[in-house]
Amino acid sequence: MDDAVTNSPVPSVRSCRTGAWLVGARGSVATTAVLGAAAVRAGLAGPVGLVSELPSLAPAALPSLEDVVLGGHDVVVTGYRKRAEVLAAQGVVPRDLVVALGAELDAADADVVVPAAEPDQRRRVAALAAAMRDFHGRHDLDRLVVVDVSSTQPPLDTDDAELVTDLASPEAVRAAWDAGRSPLPASAEAVWAAYEAGAAVVAFTPSPGVGVPAVAELGRRAGVPWAGADGKTGETLLKSVLAPMFVQRALHVDSWSSFNILGGGDGQALADPVAARSKTATKAAALEAIVGRPVPGPLHIDYVADLGDWKTAMNHVGFTGFLGTRMQLQFTWQGCDSALAAPLVLDLVRLLAACADAGRSGAVPELGFFFKDPVGSHEHALAEQWHALLGLVDELAGRRP
Amino acid sequence: MDDAVTNSPVPSVRSCRTGAWLVGARGSVATTAVLGAAAVRAGLAGPVGLVSELPSLAPAALPSLEDVVLGGHDVVVTGYRKRAEVLAAQGVVPRDLVVALGAELDAADADVVVPAAEPDQRRRVAALAAAMRDFHGRHDLDRLVVVDVSSTQPPLDTDDAELVTDLASPEAVRAAWDAGRSPLPASAEAVWAAYEAGAAVVAFTPSPGVGVPAVAELGRRAGVPWAGADGKTGETLLKSVLAPMFVQRALHVDSWSSFNILGGGDGQALADPVAARSKTATKAAALEAIVGRPVPGPLHIDYVADLGDWKTAMNHVGFTGFLGTRMQLQFTWQGCDSALAAPLVLDLVRLLAACADAGRSGAVPELGFFFKDPVGSHEHALAEQWHALLGLVDELAGRRP
Amino acid sequence: MDDAVTNSPVPSVRSCRTGAWLVGARGSVATTAVLGAAAVRAGLAGPVGLVSELPSLAPAALPSLEDVVLGGHDVVVTGYRKRAEVLAAQGVVPRDLVVALGAELDAADADVVVPAAEPDQRRRVAALAAAMRDFHGRHDLDRLVVVDVSSTQPPLDTDDAELVTDLASPEAVRAAWDAGRSPLPASAEAVWAAYEAGAAVVAFTPSPGVGVPAVAELGRRAGVPWAGADGKTGETLLKSVLAPMFVQRALHVDSWSSFNILGGGDGQALADPVAARSKTATKAAALEAIVGRPVPGPLHIDYVADLGDWKTAMNHVGFTGFLGTRMQLQFTWQGCDSALAAPLVLDLVRLLAACADAGRSGAVPELGFFFKDPVGSHEHALAEQWHALLGLVDELAGRRP
Amino acid sequence: MDDAVTNSPVPSVRSCRTGAWLVGARGSVATTAVLGAAAVRAGLAGPVGLVSELPSLAPAALPSLEDVVLGGHDVVVTGYRKRAEVLAAQGVVPRDLVVALGAELDAADADVVVPAAEPDQRRRVAALAAAMRDFHGRHDLDRLVVVDVSSTQPPLDTDDAELVTDLASPEAVRAAWDAGRSPLPASAEAVWAAYEAGAAVVAFTPSPGVGVPAVAELGRRAGVPWAGADGKTGETLLKSVLAPMFVQRALHVDSWSSFNILGGGDGQALADPVAARSKTATKAAALEAIVGRPVPGPLHIDYVADLGDWKTAMNHVGFTGFLGTRMQLQFTWQGCDSALAAPLVLDLVRLLAACADAGRSGAVPELGFFFKDPVGSHEHALAEQWHALLGLVDELAGRRP
Repeated sequence: MDDAVTNSPVPSVRSCRTGAWLVGARGSVATTAVLGAAAVRAGLAGPVGLVSELPSLAPAALPSLEDVVLGGHDVVVTGYRKRAEVLAAQGVVPRDLVVALGAELDAADADVVVPAAEPDQRRRVAALAAAMRDFHGRHDLDRLVVVDVSSTQPPLDTDDAELVTDLASPEAVRAAWDAGRSPLPASAEAVWAAYEAGAAVVAFTPSPGVGVPAVAELGRRAGVPWAGADGKTGETLLKSVLAPMFVQRALHVDSWSSFNILGGGDGQALADPVAARSKTATKAAALEAIVGRPVPGPLHIDYVADLGDWKTAMNHVGFTGFLGTRMQLQFTWQGCDSALAAPLVLDLVRLLAACADAGRSGAVPELGFFFKDPVGSHEHALAEQWHALLGLVDELAGRRP
Repeated sequence: MDDAVTNSPVPSVRSCRTGAWLVGARGSVATTAVLGAAAVRAGLAGPVGLVSELPSLAPAALPSLEDVVLGGHDVVVTGYRKRAEVLAAQGVVPRDLVVALGAELDAADADVVVPAAEPDQRRRVAALAAAMRDFHGRHDLDRLVVVDVSSTQPPLDTDDAELVTDLASPEAVRAAWDAGRSPLPASAEAVWAAYEAGAAVVAFTPSPGVGVPAVAELGRRAGVPWAGADGKTGETLLKSVLAPMFVQRALHVDSWSSFNILGGGDGQALADPVAARSKTATKAAALEAIVGRPVPGPLHIDYVADLGDWKTAMNHVGFTGFLGTRMQLQFTWQGCDSALAAPLVLDLVRLLAACADAGRSGAVPELGFFFKDPVGSHEHALAEQWHALLGLVDELAGRRP
Repeated sequence: MDDAVTNSPVPSVRSCRTGAWLVGARGSVATTAVLGAAAVRAGLAGPVGLVSELPSLAPAALPSLEDVVLGGHDVVVTGYRKRAEVLAAQGVVPRDLVVALGAELDAADADVVVPAAEPDQRRRVAALAAAMRDFHGRHDLDRLVVVDVSSTQPPLDTDDAELVTDLASPEAVRAAWDAGRSPLPASAEAVWAAYEAGAAVVAFTPSPGVGVPAVAELGRRAGVPWAGADGKTGETLLKSVLAPMFVQRALHVDSWSSFNILGGGDGQALADPVAARSKTATKAAALEAIVGRPVPGPLHIDYVADLGDWKTAMNHVGFTGFLGTRMQLQFTWQGCDSALAAPLVLDLVRLLAACADAGRSGAVPELGFFFKDPVGSHEHALAEQWHALLGLVDELAGRRP
Repeated sequence: MDDAVTNSPVPSVRSCRTGAWLVGARGSVATTAVLGAAAVRAGLAGPVGLVSELPSLAPAALPSLEDVVLGGHDVVVTGYRKRAEVLAAQGVVPRDLVVALGAELDAADADVVVPAAEPDQRRRVAALAAAMRDFHGRHDLDRLVVVDVSSTQPPLDTDDAELVTDLASPEAVRAAWDAGRSPLPASAEAVWAAYEAGAAVVAFTPSPGVGVPAVAELGRRAGVPWAGADGKTGETLLKSVLAPMFVQRALHVDSWSSFNILGGGDGQALADPVAARSKTATKAAALEAIVGRPVPGPLHIDYVADLGDWKTAMNHVGFTGFLGTRMQLQFTWQGCDSALAAPLVLDLVRLLAACADAGRSGAVPELGFFFKDPVGSHEHALAEQWHALLGLVDELAGRRP
């Protein structure tokens, strides 16, 4: 493999001033992304964790991190410096960086909007789209990519017939608005606003958004690309390499028990069983898709406050080999959620900006590599997703028409 | 992935009576292979564990297990039924199978040769080649594949200048014999004999054999294919999917600590630090090749008698992500060595027979999927090896000239 | 420690023909106990797993296993030989023992009663007491100990005021019967019958029984001893040694996450969240009692069919040391439930018979060593429970009046 | 258990100005102890990790941490503030404490002596004793306790007959000095000096010292108490609670495989196989003593640089239960060496000072609770050691004459 992480420079020649609009701009992932982008720009951090800096992706000539401007919106008002200090205290980011880049963090606060309270969904969405356009104009951007890194929200209630009808098309949504209803789930409002503002969209959470029929149709009409859903940073990442191994070796997976504990804001959100349903659904998808059938075994996500941003996954796999011999694999993944997710956010902004630049619109299945539940693709095996990503790199490099 | 293990029949149409000559024919792996092949033939065992029965390999039209005859040689004289009963007591194979297939096991004893004591290496090798030819003739075989599943032996002493000279070519070996020396390492004698007998060779252990220059040259002259080395059944199998994951995600592997405990004959052999050197060398190769640099961390193999054939690997990986955040992955693999290795032996016999049938000679790098230290290839990532294997299937299917 | 497991004989001089009446006599634990007792008597199994055979317990002069007769009742009719063969196939017990002791297993079937269907609780209980008395008489027993090893049942509904009133005293129970109600929970019927028959009782499950006020009062009036509740064989056993370690070292346990997966009958029963409530309550008790406060962290018990009788507990402990440094302990316990529980059942029968013989009545807190939720004691630390057990041994040895 | 860690104040009334002389005063453990003592005194850190602050130890009326003065010697000259900053960067201690207590750290440097190069052992020892007396006098101490927290050194070469003779008595040591030899191992020099200076000694490492015959005799003549050897902070701590559990439950431990990885200075010292021999010897002692026989299984200690002060122990225990059923326990301990060891150093200084105050001399076996290889005791089970410690508390409280 020629992709060992090195410090060798990667040419990034696509001249494309790119805006990244973070939905949930004050969260841990967003804060780490803002700090990290500043650190890389200042030469204080290397490319570790950034897929977009791997030699294999160099031919895509992605927009440089120098050319990426971060902004977004959040209901939280605490500034980046304060948020970053909290993360440093938890060991998520180095305190030295927070100290060295305090001015950059303070400056970044200027690009975070706190939406005004507005009961009318249509006006709320319009205000958001206006804020995005304003950000676009103020920074003289070539492209804007909206990334949802806000708290996970529950899946759509598909038993609600009126809701399903209201979300069938952009026209139906507007008709529902006319009738005084607010059909869009909260997580879809920013996506709708993004498409109204001509922005590409990354669904980094499992919340309903890019997959809602009306929203997807709006995106198609806007001619922008999108990618999702739900960043693959831990347990599912491991499943996406381990499950193919069992399949290719003809070993029968009898059960796969998945226990996740985490603290932090994400943990708190997932402690709500209704919100967690989106997450457990995307987490289960990979295994079933790779093994080709549902695999028995519990999947729990539990909030354990003292773990903070440290997500620990303990998995137990029971499998059968030749002549019925039963064997086991266990693993424990102790990952820092923000440290794993933040660079992928930057990767996706760069990649989706390049896709938009190259005229791609609609779901970009080749970005499934980054997601638990890839839109536009049924491929969950990481190695196959990696090859698809390299194919996209070839396309962006103009090597494939 | 469309390779979920199913019970659907796979067409095996290559009519090719194939002999499998097992070096170390009384060992656990060989005994499990003999029992397992009989069980599959009798319809008492399914395809689980057999890569060659996966739908993806069907186009290769491999010789059917019905057409595979197992024999070999060993210094041990205990019969298969007795050996299988011991394995059943350890939970390695089901006792029901041993009872049901007692007659088949007894019959298989007839094809195991105990070599006569013979101090002269040239004569020892010649006697072995004669035994192989006899087996070939007696069973009216189309092909013979010799598989080394004997105890691991130490690597060549490359500081021994005379030895290196003696092993430089077939002629040098013969000249050494003329001079009364025995240059071939014990593990290479059977390979030499195999090539003399026109057989293909699978090096399922890390012992020196197919890679010895004189031996490789003899193989080339014989026009037969070979594959190796050292079956990949546990810790290294996991490394070959986990290490690419770290690389493709741009995560920096700081250390990888590998602790292996196992009992049984293999464990006893590896308790000898000199013999273990072959094994630790092949085990280390994968990680370094995939990560692109040596990775710090101990690699121990320890003999723990009570584990029997159950090989337990405990690994600890320290890695760094974005902005220097340090994280950990641990895994424990509790595998049954024979249950994992035996079906691969049958897979390799079928695949190498098909390769021979298709006119392939020399090292077959596309079989690297099965090995810790693939001959003729520097690729260690399992997913890439799987694609190479599928390419070989295409070739065998006549879809690629 | 002078209690290393040895094969040295332990004097058992208390002449006391003891009956063991197993509630759930056909379950895995009961079957393993019946097979195991026969194996020890026949000299085919050693004392491993039997606490009552440790040198430290010799002074108690417990009734010999030779003098223990096993019987009981169950709705299941499958014979012991068949049940034992199933356990052997799962690796829970050695098949050789099942073959060698087939006659003994068949003979044991004669002492298992299948209760006739009887809708009236009073008559059901009376019939059970009669069956116990019959067993007592038929085998000319000195003592009878009833052991509940049946499926776990849900805790009492303490919100049901009428039920609480009905269970307040033996008289209240009888009045409820007169009024046509069936106040006793199913798990308490056998305990009631036991006390009616003058038998001692071991509550090896967390089901409501010995702790129900009316039942406890009946036991006190019967003057018999009892012990419970819920055999401590795995995760809680570990907690009862690890938690004191943290406390004695002044380390602060921040969270303790407990994940249990198991198959088998017990697993199926616990897959019912209502029944599982009894179990999770007893499991949580130990940790809180030892640490002195509730410890955050999830506690899951999940049914994973392929594990069979193999109970796997994966625990993650987050703890804080000096100056706030955060650390972790993880463990995985892979135990065979029946192999762990069955010898404790035999231990408890012998110990409780000796207690009865020595005139003890009421709860025996010194037997807390064996239980997750010791009746009559708030001590959960295993080492302290061990000392209490040794104190009981002293008492039984007549060394303490 | 009434020893839950709380913040309730513990009375410490023994008026006893106590000096702690740290051998290896600049190491991680010593630095953490100096910082931690200052933090507790300043009310910036609580009692977590300090056994001496548990309610159970209050009756001993140990000297208050207010009354403990830390000093010592080391060849390293880097000041405490700098050392503490490095530890903070590794997450071993909180940076806030280092900042807040910078002045106290700088002040502590005044009490650290860098010994002058001196080839003559007698003079080297005399200079050390003089430095200790000077420290004693300067701070007007009532008691001095010398604690060895320096790098682990190899065990004595008992095959060296002259050395054994030289170390047989204080007189023999002095005769050897007269003859120009330097018989004391480096680690024993400070112990000798301590006894010369009338100080008590804590052997926190496994290096030869308090156990050397001549040294022990000198200590007896000095009438001071000592304790050791080798602080029990991780793997062995766990063994000392888990092994008794197996024994008391009559479970047969078949194998115990112990894999330790650590970075830092301690890791580097132990990467030297000769020095490591002291450590592996003390580590093996506990298990054999508790189980009552040698337990098979490897014991490795490997240096893995990126782990820093984080000591990770991965253990695999194979054990047999009733009827021969084989089961497994695995655990992973991820501890911070300094955070675990430093408070024990402070505990031992307070306890040993109180022992001296109470007139104890010679080895104090009741302090075995803190050590891997307790001097003067064969008890390794933590719970028994805890009871012995409580007995010592009773004695110090004047409740036992």
